[in-house]
Amino acid sequence: MQSSGTDSSFSRILSREQNGVIQPILTDLYQITMAYAYWKSGKKDDRAVFDLYFRKNPFKGEFTVFAGLEECIKFLLKFCFTESDINYLRKVLPSNIESEFFDYLQQISTNDVRLYAIDEGTVVFPKVPLLTVEGPLPIVQLMETPLLNLVNYASLVATNGMRFRLAAGPEKILLEFGLRRAQGPDGALSASRYCYLGGFDGTSNVLAGKLYGIPVRGTHAHAFVTSYTDLLNISEETLMRKGTEEPVKFLPICKKWQKQLTGILGFLDDQVSNGELAAFISYASAFPDGFLALIDTYDVIKSGLPNFCTVALALHELGYEPRGIRLDSGDLSYLSNHVRSRFKKVAESLKLPWFGKLTIVASNDINEDTIHSLNQQGHEIDSFGIGTHLVTCQKQPALGGVYKVMGYKYKLHLFYNNNETTDGDALVDLMLQPDEQPPILNTRILCRHPFQESKRAYVCPAKMEQLHKLYWDNGELVQSLPTLTELRCKAIASLKSMRQDHKRALNPTPYKVSVSAKLYGFLHDLWLENAPIGELS
Amino acid sequence: MQSSGTDSSFSRILSREQNGVIQPILTDLYQITMAYAYWKSGKKDDRAVFDLYFRKNPFKGEFTVFAGLEECIKFLLKFCFTESDINYLRKVLPSNIESEFFDYLQQISTNDVRLYAIDEGTVVFPKVPLLTVEGPLPIVQLMETPLLNLVNYASLVATNGMRFRLAAGPEKILLEFGLRRAQGPDGALSASRYCYLGGFDGTSNVLAGKLYGIPVRGTHAHAFVTSYTDLLNISEETLMRKGTEEPVKFLPICKKWQKQLTGILGFLDDQVSNGELAAFISYASAFPDGFLALIDTYDVIKSGLPNFCTVALALHELGYEPRGIRLDSGDLSYLSNHVRSRFKKVAESLKLPWFGKLTIVASNDINEDTIHSLNQQGHEIDSFGIGTHLVTCQKQPALGGVYKVMGYKYKLHLFYNNNETTDGDALVDLMLQPDEQPPILNTRILCRHPFQESKRAYVCPAKMEQLHKLYWDNGELVQSLPTLTELRCKAIASLKSMRQDHKRALNPTPYKVSVSAKLYGFLHDLWLENAPIGELS
Repeated sequence: MQSSGTDSSFSRILSREQNGVIQPILTDLYQITMAYAYWKSGKKDDRAVFDLYFRKNPFKGEFTVFAGLEECIKFLLKFCFTESDINYLRKVLPSNIESEFFDYLQQISTNDVRLYAIDEGTVVFPKVPLLTVEGPLPIVQLMETPLLNLVNYASLVATNGMRFRLAAGPEKILLEFGLRRAQGPDGALSASRYCYLGGFDGTSNVLAGKLYGIPVRGTHAHAFVTSYTDLLNISEETLMRKGTEEPVKFLPICKKWQKQLTGILGFLDDQVSNGELAAFISYASAFPDGFLALIDTYDVIKSGLPNFCTVALALHELGYEPRGIRLDSGDLSYLSNHVRSRFKKVAESLKLPWFGKLTIVASNDINEDTIHSLNQQGHEIDSFGIGTHLVTCQKQPALGGVYKVMGYKYKLHLFYNNNETTDGDALVDLMLQPDEQPPILNTRILCRHPFQESKRAYVCPAKMEQLHKLYWDNGELVQSLPTLTELRCKAIASLKSMRQDHKRALNPTPYKVSVSAKLYGFLHDLWLENAPIGELS
Repeated sequence: MQSSGTDSSFSRILSREQNGVIQPILTDLYQITMAYAYWKSGKKDDRAVFDLYFRKNPFKGEFTVFAGLEECIKFLLKFCFTESDINYLRKVLPSNIESEFFDYLQQISTNDVRLYAIDEGTVVFPKVPLLTVEGPLPIVQLMETPLLNLVNYASLVATNGMRFRLAAGPEKILLEFGLRRAQGPDGALSASRYCYLGGFDGTSNVLAGKLYGIPVRGTHAHAFVTSYTDLLNISEETLMRKGTEEPVKFLPICKKWQKQLTGILGFLDDQVSNGELAAFISYASAFPDGFLALIDTYDVIKSGLPNFCTVALALHELGYEPRGIRLDSGDLSYLSNHVRSRFKKVAESLKLPWFGKLTIVASNDINEDTIHSLNQQGHEIDSFGIGTHLVTCQKQPALGGVYKVMGYKYKLHLFYNNNETTDGDALVDLMLQPDEQPPILNTRILCRHPFQESKRAYVCPAKMEQLHKLYWDNGELVQSLPTLTELRCKAIASLKSMRQDHKRALNPTPYKVSVSAKLYGFLHDLWLENAPIGELS
């Protein structure tokens, strides 16, 4: 399902039309009025350099996962005002505007634009430019709003996904279930895509699975259970013994196991819901392998759990492998512990060790704090299904990315520590002037805080990486674009290289972004020369 | 720019392909696995009725604006799995699934589905079904996720828009500026559309203007101002005297007015930024009518305001009408009052009354509480530009809409009070059994709380409306769909009919949703018969 590789990235992005290519007209009107004013005052060929960055990590954290670059490239690739756009703009703008301006708009392209970017999936920090866009002033100005739109939410939700991953730990299965509560259909698709990039394992969103090759997951809802009222509904249900064409009546086998289980689990067979049992039998008949049932429609302990165990053992008798249960309400710590203890009891009593290890999935309005709290309380959940809080980023629903003219140029390096126990943690991001010699490995270099004179330190990098790469030049993509799965690996590896104290949930340590002594001097001269410039929001 | 009217609604919705029609595959995988289980157990032709509603108004308020219906209709209209969808599903679902199921999926449609809905733009309340969907069980089940996705965010952001409108009052101009911070491109388009429906006046989003006929607004950014460094940039700028072909050198006229203004406003002409003045002159030359300048790039009081007044008076001398200023930082109460007092001083000194009434626009991370606080402090802002908080609904970024099987049918009426001073406030929403006689005007009827026996009241409706209408039947839209402008009027009128205490920001009174005595009796019998059903989240 995943696209084949980096070499086909160009044709791959062209073929992904379904999710809509951003058009240049998806911009703020003031970008177009400014373009006209620039054009009119003869500044259309002025060159400008804009940096796209953010000022504060989201969610009170100290890291951000950069995402959205592939969509930015698609935007550059398709940057063209259509005739219908131009006709619309003629109606909206004042009538005094020269026809030549519209001719100009219709022929502009990104052929003279250069885009430098940090690789998508990299862990990034405040004030570090994610994108640097160079080109004719009106054109790079027009690109501001769409580029911000494409990077802001993508990076926000990828970061959110990564935070859930950090909270849950590397072993848990994390599933994104947010489609119904996302901010629109495309918001949902972006959420599925970038949560996966941020370390999730799958999504319930079928179209996201189809478009992006993300594993899709899902079983059944409460409505499925309530649509069955008694065992009459399924009395004729048969199932083939696995690997054979031999149809077996399934209900009697279930009845037999139910009887045996009443002793082991101590439930009363007149307290289980027969409608729920019928629903489980029906679902198991449809999906005999990997049976996973939602057990909280009526009563987890008295009905759902016994009914699941009944059907799971009957399936096992016919050669199938049941998978587990899902909890969607109640006290998830208590219930998951209880369910696990019952699974273990069945495992012991029937000498079926696999039964003790059945999967427990939990959903129900889970946020990052819920997971931390569950960890503290102790739980037996193997997999989390996460919706609203993940996809809408409830804790902070927008990343405040900005796009600003830069008064200077720089090169951006990432230094790694020398560390015998790990591959070497990320140590500092350092900005140098373009004409500076690249730093030398294992040789000390002075890193200065960009604003505070007293903050500086010598660093001796064991490993080094240039962070900015030229991605777009002469109207062409000049880097290969990784697949989504590769981006996901990149993001996980990038976060792994961060020191633990930058990643902890409570009061994380800020990661340092420094400048070289030469750039520090240059910046301070520049600041002295210039009047203070107001904040551009 | 607005579509022509209700009679062409069918062709209109078909032609709006640009914003993407929701496909049935944009759903949770479990809808498809359930459809298979239903199909396999012979329940594919069972009829089911689902209600879509929410349980709690958003933003701690007591009302919600229903939106998203037109998109739901488009979804029904285009409900069809493509061959490529089916091929994808074959790969994703277990291999034991019969080929006939995929044939079934490929031929399903909404021809046997009935959709009842409250009109889009109506003010609605918790537990009142916004949509009621009747049809074959697997089909209406498959529709759950997309319908929720389409209604949840649309209604949430329309409600948010309406709350900003209530806070700002009916006279203020409200502009949506959220594109760069919205949750993706389509999130931004939906925000523009539904904020307008919720009472906004315009948007900065050009594509939203083009697609939906929303008025678009915008002038220039700080980057425009900083791109000019001194007056040399514009020394040759000329402007035609309005209505003539006579080119006039604009800078000398500005210089003359600047000199005159130093006395009136008491600023120092060596403290104003010449770069900013150059930018204003350049922008004014491009847009001489309706000149509106962002005045906080350097210093509002010492530079931005004097520079604006300079250029505004020069434009006026040449016959043009300047519009006003925008503030994007600082203390908006203080600054707007200061700017207004300076405008009035110029108006008095130069006997130009219009100058005192120039428009003051404010932006800068404004939320609902900011507006309430500005109202308390006093301000002179005429227009608000609102971004992040509006479009991401930062206070509550998801509406918790749900879609549940209903065990009973009902008719829903809205009663109005008899009120001599208004058109009659909305009094109560009342649900009746389908076979009950419709209530009679000006005749008392018992309205009961659906759950609490002690809560009941006789009501004597002066006016009455049936809330649910059949919108979709036999594969066709059977109501006309209003234009967006009509929906906006509907929403504003619907809110106007609400009593003030339901709408206030602090501790609003809940609006009552009641049931008839007969439906109350029926519900209680039903509840006694049935075991409690867990919450379906």
